[in-house]
Amino acid sequence: MAAASHQPTCMNKAPHYATQQKRPRAAEKREWGVIKASEHSKNTVNPIRKIVDSLNVPHNPEKEPIRLNLGDPTVLGNLPPSDVAVQAMEDVIRGHKFDGYGPAVGAQCAREAVAKKFTHPNAPITADDVILASGCSHALEMAIVAIADPGENILVPNPGFPLYTTLCKPNGIETLSYNLKMEHGGIVDLVHLESLINDKTRAIIVNNPSNPTGVVFTKEHLEEILRLAYKHKLPIIADEIYGDLTYDGATFHPMATLSPQVPIISCDGIAKRYLVPGWRLGWVIVHDRFGALTEVKQGMVALSMKIVGPCALVQGALPRILQDTPQSFFDHIKEVLSANANAVYKSLSRIPGLKPLKPQGAMYMMIGFDDEIYGEETKLMQDLIREESVICLPGSAFNSPNWFRLVLTYPLEVTEEACERISEFCLRRLKLSKAYGPLKNTEKDDDLDSCGQDNEDSSCLESEDNN
Amino acid sequence: MAAASHQPTCMNKAPHYATQQKRPRAAEKREWGVIKASEHSKNTVNPIRKIVDSLNVPHNPEKEPIRLNLGDPTVLGNLPPSDVAVQAMEDVIRGHKFDGYGPAVGAQCAREAVAKKFTHPNAPITADDVILASGCSHALEMAIVAIADPGENILVPNPGFPLYTTLCKPNGIETLSYNLKMEHGGIVDLVHLESLINDKTRAIIVNNPSNPTGVVFTKEHLEEILRLAYKHKLPIIADEIYGDLTYDGATFHPMATLSPQVPIISCDGIAKRYLVPGWRLGWVIVHDRFGALTEVKQGMVALSMKIVGPCALVQGALPRILQDTPQSFFDHIKEVLSANANAVYKSLSRIPGLKPLKPQGAMYMMIGFDDEIYGEETKLMQDLIREESVICLPGSAFNSPNWFRLVLTYPLEVTEEACERISEFCLRRLKLSKAYGPLKNTEKDDDLDSCGQDNEDSSCLESEDNN
Repeated sequence: MAAASHQPTCMNKAPHYATQQKRPRAAEKREWGVIKASEHSKNTVNPIRKIVDSLNVPHNPEKEPIRLNLGDPTVLGNLPPSDVAVQAMEDVIRGHKFDGYGPAVGAQCAREAVAKKFTHPNAPITADDVILASGCSHALEMAIVAIADPGENILVPNPGFPLYTTLCKPNGIETLSYNLKMEHGGIVDLVHLESLINDKTRAIIVNNPSNPTGVVFTKEHLEEILRLAYKHKLPIIADEIYGDLTYDGATFHPMATLSPQVPIISCDGIAKRYLVPGWRLGWVIVHDRFGALTEVKQGMVALSMKIVGPCALVQGALPRILQDTPQSFFDHIKEVLSANANAVYKSLSRIPGLKPLKPQGAMYMMIGFDDEIYGEETKLMQDLIREESVICLPGSAFNSPNWFRLVLTYPLEVTEEACERISEFCLRRLKLSKAYGPLKNTEKDDDLDSCGQDNEDSSCLESEDNN
Repeated sequence: MAAASHQPTCMNKAPHYATQQKRPRAAEKREWGVIKASEHSKNTVNPIRKIVDSLNVPHNPEKEPIRLNLGDPTVLGNLPPSDVAVQAMEDVIRGHKFDGYGPAVGAQCAREAVAKKFTHPNAPITADDVILASGCSHALEMAIVAIADPGENILVPNPGFPLYTTLCKPNGIETLSYNLKMEHGGIVDLVHLESLINDKTRAIIVNNPSNPTGVVFTKEHLEEILRLAYKHKLPIIADEIYGDLTYDGATFHPMATLSPQVPIISCDGIAKRYLVPGWRLGWVIVHDRFGALTEVKQGMVALSMKIVGPCALVQGALPRILQDTPQSFFDHIKEVLSANANAVYKSLSRIPGLKPLKPQGAMYMMIGFDDEIYGEETKLMQDLIREESVICLPGSAFNSPNWFRLVLTYPLEVTEEACERISEFCLRRLKLSKAYGPLKNTEKDDDLDSCGQDNEDSSCLESEDNN
């Protein structure tokens, strides 16, 4: 089993920014102080970074690390990009038609390809509605920065992709987090969402299929969200980067195709479905309704001038990538995701105190756990690394304590081994918590169910100090 | 002579953002207003855009257009990227080591390659001092946004690259323009520069070799600027994208290698010297002195998280591009630039009222003209297109009236034909202005020198209304 990283060393190394204080001469030291960084840059914070840093603990040297924390389907090499994409890139590089600058909004042919691929009778678009971006992150940045001013706010899902806040905060835009009902299939708590809307609210970000939950919203649920947006006259920023990467019977509905029609900025890209996140090619599609987004669209066009478009080579390849990638390519990814999801669900559902949320899309899965058994999630994840060399992302990365996220893109046998290790780890802790739990000291090692997920008493509370 | 564009149609088409007002139903019209764009996006303005739009006049159908306005060396295909770069990209695409996410600051191997290439005994750097960016524009954006807060200011050259203001203004950062002495070789007016510095000044942007002038500052002149920066304890943002793209005996001196040493953020990339502006790969190099840039560097690292690094494929190719591109590749570019510069200078110096500024670097050349003969520059450039199908950029794009810029990257015979057409155009106008000039109506068609550049009286003033 090859669980070692497929990526070259240089892509994996965490960068170190040791303060390289060169010894100053005395006179200079008096004269030059530390120049302050801007407030903007100081407010640019990705909470995942700190949490990933916290996972920097030694793994068990006897076990090969399995990195289920990385939201990157390319890590092991088992899901390479399509031959179509590779060949298109080679031809573009040899053709020398895309070495130069294109329009900041993207090459016309690339924007036309996006429009052709995603136009829909209920949401017709042309190339004029498309602005290319340097990845979906950049698409989201353009949408957010164009639609809200400092002091205004945008609603974001919780748990959700932390980049939304990373992009809003330095611009003085507040994020208000609406809950996903994690105990009820991960759907949006509509009552909570509506309660957050105020006169400073500029947009609702809806991420479907969802990171980190892997949940795919039904048409009916999406239309409930749309009715709220319509009622409050709020546009939607639809983060649809996982698009139709759904499985086990779930169907993806682009929000713009549903009723009631509201102004929608759909953010997307080739990162996930085409398995090339490093190529950094994304886009916004502006579904203007009632002329409401006319100015915001112009705003995004203006913002695109700052870095003059994504890599032109990938733009040049985009038409073929979007048009010619065979369905079998996507089917294979979905099969891998489905097999992984079902294996994890089957394996970890059996463990008392673990509550996997069954996903049907994206590339992730959230596992809830009973903190009275397993304790605080960052420490739990650190211990999992120390003991089993399995690395998962603590839910705190998504403002979701008592959950952790794992990715579903690895070869099935790797995932299965990870699940076995997680299971053994949990069973050991379960025994420990039963044996040494501070509230109830029981010797019944075989009665695991007494600490199961439906056990509401705190008899299995584990002291963090014990670990 | 093939002066037609080498670029595919889709890269050249100016995007049209016609307001596509879909006919709203009456009820909807009442309910949804136009959503305001953010102030940030409304303040993101590239002055070149308007000026380029103003050049959208019909060219002379009998003459093939020659587009000397485009600051893109790839347009005609006469300057393709090196085989090294093409082969490196192909290998990276086939190797599948750079399909995934890398660190937001860039792949370690790519940052090491930049450090290895640009380290210098007077300015030693390591990979830790390098942050990759999506082109030099993005490098400049990170430097600017990390170092200044709203209400503060940054000094920028005038004439200069308008993107500096495009990047500053939406963040509430003011640009104060210091003059280049265009009548004295395009060097910095140090007295003017110093007069602009106030307690809100955070940095000085120095662009060398310069766009639009093509001037290369001497070591002594750069050290004069450094002394001012040292005196006022101001860091320098060195826009060195043209680097050692110098010719006719000029030498490029990276500012960080000179004395006195001040904190310098050097912004650079492969766009120009490696002839791949569309590949969007740039970087900042932080030359921290006295620990002054410690926080600003952290700020730039934070900002890099927003779009998670430039295209990983190009990052993967970067080490070979930087290490293996043969000197002959650069020599060829310099030969082309030098031959073009000398041809233009020779040709247009002869025209009364034209004052070419001789360049020794970058890819451009500025031609001054006597507005009393030739009138306002935008109209002049429009007429040049209408009559001769030669397209140059009016100096107003760089806040420099009575100048226009042309690029020096075309095949020599194209440039020479352009110069012939410009000469004929100017001579016609010269005759017209002498014949019908409102101040002095002279019939002496053959005495061109009377309207030459040293002619200080306004006898050749041309009324715009005549054209």
